[in-house]
Amino acid sequence: MLGVFSKSARHFAVRSSFSLSQQGRLISIRRNPSEKTLLALKSLLGDRLSTASSVLKQHGTDESYHAVTSPDAVAFVQSTEEVAAVVKICAAAGTPVIPFGAGSSLEGHISASQGGVSINLMGMNNILSIEPENMSCKVQAGVTREQLNVELRATGLMFTVDPGANASIGGMISTNASGTTTVRYGNMKTNVMALSAVMADGQIIKTGSKARKSSAGYDLTRLLIGSEGTLGVVTEAELRLFGIPEAEKTMICQFNSIKNAVDTCAMVMQMGIPVARMELMDENAVEAINKYSKLKTPVRPSLLVEQHGSPSEVEAQSFVVVEIANDFGARDIELATSIEERKRLWSGRHTAWYATMSQRPGSRGLSTDVAVPFSNLTDVIVETQADLKKSDLFGSIVGHVGDGNFHVMLPFDPENIELMQKVRDFSDRLVKRAIECGGTCTGEHGIGNGKMSYLRLEHSNSVDVMHTIKKALDPKNIMNPGKIFYGAER
Amino acid sequence: MLGVFSKSARHFAVRSSFSLSQQGRLISIRRNPSEKTLLALKSLLGDRLSTASSVLKQHGTDESYHAVTSPDAVAFVQSTEEVAAVVKICAAAGTPVIPFGAGSSLEGHISASQGGVSINLMGMNNILSIEPENMSCKVQAGVTREQLNVELRATGLMFTVDPGANASIGGMISTNASGTTTVRYGNMKTNVMALSAVMADGQIIKTGSKARKSSAGYDLTRLLIGSEGTLGVVTEAELRLFGIPEAEKTMICQFNSIKNAVDTCAMVMQMGIPVARMELMDENAVEAINKYSKLKTPVRPSLLVEQHGSPSEVEAQSFVVVEIANDFGARDIELATSIEERKRLWSGRHTAWYATMSQRPGSRGLSTDVAVPFSNLTDVIVETQADLKKSDLFGSIVGHVGDGNFHVMLPFDPENIELMQKVRDFSDRLVKRAIECGGTCTGEHGIGNGKMSYLRLEHSNSVDVMHTIKKALDPKNIMNPGKIFYGAER
Repeated sequence: MLGVFSKSARHFAVRSSFSLSQQGRLISIRRNPSEKTLLALKSLLGDRLSTASSVLKQHGTDESYHAVTSPDAVAFVQSTEEVAAVVKICAAAGTPVIPFGAGSSLEGHISASQGGVSINLMGMNNILSIEPENMSCKVQAGVTREQLNVELRATGLMFTVDPGANASIGGMISTNASGTTTVRYGNMKTNVMALSAVMADGQIIKTGSKARKSSAGYDLTRLLIGSEGTLGVVTEAELRLFGIPEAEKTMICQFNSIKNAVDTCAMVMQMGIPVARMELMDENAVEAINKYSKLKTPVRPSLLVEQHGSPSEVEAQSFVVVEIANDFGARDIELATSIEERKRLWSGRHTAWYATMSQRPGSRGLSTDVAVPFSNLTDVIVETQADLKKSDLFGSIVGHVGDGNFHVMLPFDPENIELMQKVRDFSDRLVKRAIECGGTCTGEHGIGNGKMSYLRLEHSNSVDVMHTIKKALDPKNIMNPGKIFYGAER
Repeated sequence: MLGVFSKSARHFAVRSSFSLSQQGRLISIRRNPSEKTLLALKSLLGDRLSTASSVLKQHGTDESYHAVTSPDAVAFVQSTEEVAAVVKICAAAGTPVIPFGAGSSLEGHISASQGGVSINLMGMNNILSIEPENMSCKVQAGVTREQLNVELRATGLMFTVDPGANASIGGMISTNASGTTTVRYGNMKTNVMALSAVMADGQIIKTGSKARKSSAGYDLTRLLIGSEGTLGVVTEAELRLFGIPEAEKTMICQFNSIKNAVDTCAMVMQMGIPVARMELMDENAVEAINKYSKLKTPVRPSLLVEQHGSPSEVEAQSFVVVEIANDFGARDIELATSIEERKRLWSGRHTAWYATMSQRPGSRGLSTDVAVPFSNLTDVIVETQADLKKSDLFGSIVGHVGDGNFHVMLPFDPENIELMQKVRDFSDRLVKRAIECGGTCTGEHGIGNGKMSYLRLEHSNSVDVMHTIKKALDPKNIMNPGKIFYGAER
């Protein structure tokens, strides 16, 4: 429905149509760029400003199940200064800017929810410096993690954050990405030392330093990480690197019950055994992988555990993990140290998403992303699996259980409204279960436009503090609007 | 000099006197609480509001060398709700509030620079919960780290951040404290999971969650950590705990030159050998400790290294460290695994500050706090030592060199204006040296009122972004004013 907006919402409305949801929340304001704005951008970028429909469509597509809106134009930028110039032009006209990386977001981050200009950063893909002595490197936002690790190979160093997708570093910063190795090496918050970013007024700032730690002023680096492009466009980052371990040992343990698998994980973590990865797959995931990859792995909940260190360390540590797993009735423990064998053990986990989706051909998928305290992990996963069965839904559970973070991957036919609602209801119950025990609605995917309603459930009135910061730093609400906050928040 | 303040400064001036420095910066505005404010606080707190001169004096004393101003009143609070009530009363009157913990700040954080009410949080010293299964605990801000670790002992867990002083957890959060174990276990930013804080309007917020990671909205936890009470008063914190290691092994290696000592450290870090502590002491520190503790340790630069892990891990790792140290010409390597022997090796490092001060009886001390990239660590320390000699100043260098962070401890007679200026000039050159190579003016002590002039040197225009956040969240500038920012910033 169309309606008159409140005083606080008016603050954000520049022109064009808008509508209110049934709760009276502002859900859409179009703020398409004017001809004048497009001309100014064209004169800045030439052919690197595109309004071709195929390009717009591509920039209105991500890997989420959300309805995502295409932008009105796409700016293919090549430098921080160019990003600043684009933002200045858009700021003058109140036109939204939406940063675009590899397009692998799962929560609608790249949607031009209110129209505007996508800033495609993938042309900024230079590795600016590698400093082995400082165990750090500096990259532009469009560098992908795979590209970076190929480049690093000769140095004996690696960039460890691995969200699965070959995401861009800029995108990974925006959502505070993490992944299978976070249990050992941390997430983007601990692996980014410094940033360059373009703020809403077009100002270029540099945050952080090349030192390992600092107490100098507010931590703008960690404020920008996870801010999903709503405070600034990240253009460069100084990243922390780790040495490639001398030895790696991987094991896969199967269990009779998911409870035993998760309890094993919890015990390993509580005993402080160093693990580099700790991944859970439930029966459904294993079965889907079997079908997808024509394997005959026994269909049981499985735990993949990996150790990194010196050869003697990984031997000693994996020995203890095997002992713990056996205490919880593990079956068929398989261990591997060679690259080929380790790759084989990991192959199932890596294909889990596509394997699950392939069980319902033609489906799109929803991936939940809760993280919960260790002490509740077993209960929450067991309850979630029971809920899945009770709801008569098909889904696989995989997870970075060493961090208390797991995903239920649910394929659904987007045309089947009833099924889609069932999937959403299931996800809703899971999020509430996680928040109730002190967890979070998103461990690594971000809020985007998909989880805005949960932000207040999780953070209560501290969302108002977040929004005060947003309004102060982006008074025209041009930085990726419609993400994290409802427009009329507060 | 007294003068008319600028438009932006006026924003902060409520009443009373103020003065401008020669650079035209606002350095002092008194905003003493009115009788009405004091009455309202008295009616809230009864005897727990004090205006006794001895109490005011105690709350105008820290461990820094700065001129620190006493507050007009001290509120001894007992709960988060009481802090909120105090802040509301003060906010209504535009009266500054200054959080006060153990009083161990080194940068004048507790100074009532513009008058106002100190909020003494040491009565909030309850450990609210310990959850061994989640490896976390929840404490009030007035709990000290020693108190917490005594309480934790029976659980086999420990809180690892150790800044030396028996600081309060609230104070450690305010300055983003770290210390000897940060190289292994992180600093306050990585060890605080969630916070309760009272904001400038008296609103109580809860940030973060009990999950190990989250991508839900802006990271207010890490924004508050290191914000030195200028955004909110932290009242409670959920802390991450680690298992007490099965085995610990300590070694002290002496070198012919400080360059060899620091190069050993850099090599160990670059090779990724896990170290739990990595501390440097220069010749002056060793000599001062000898005199202070009546020891006869050869006067040479020394490196203290500690390993935590299983017995076989610490053996293997310390063996590699010894090899590296030998490559750099180490002499007299001493190793210890028993508690008594390890304590003996550490005793010198623990007394280094007092030992250094005792070399100039009656002195106060300045401790520098730069952190630099590893790749520059050796050069910066060698240059700093040369500068010390050239300046004919006495000082000891100790440092958490595994994080690139070191302190020069300089005793001086505060009556000796000339010497004090020489000490300040030396510190100024050191900070500039650190910032020039991409480091920071403060690795763990914070900006306080002592390093405000360096914040812009280090962070340039991003200080404006910090200050925009400050103004948005604390429009009356009542939260610990006169710290981090000059009043008339921007």
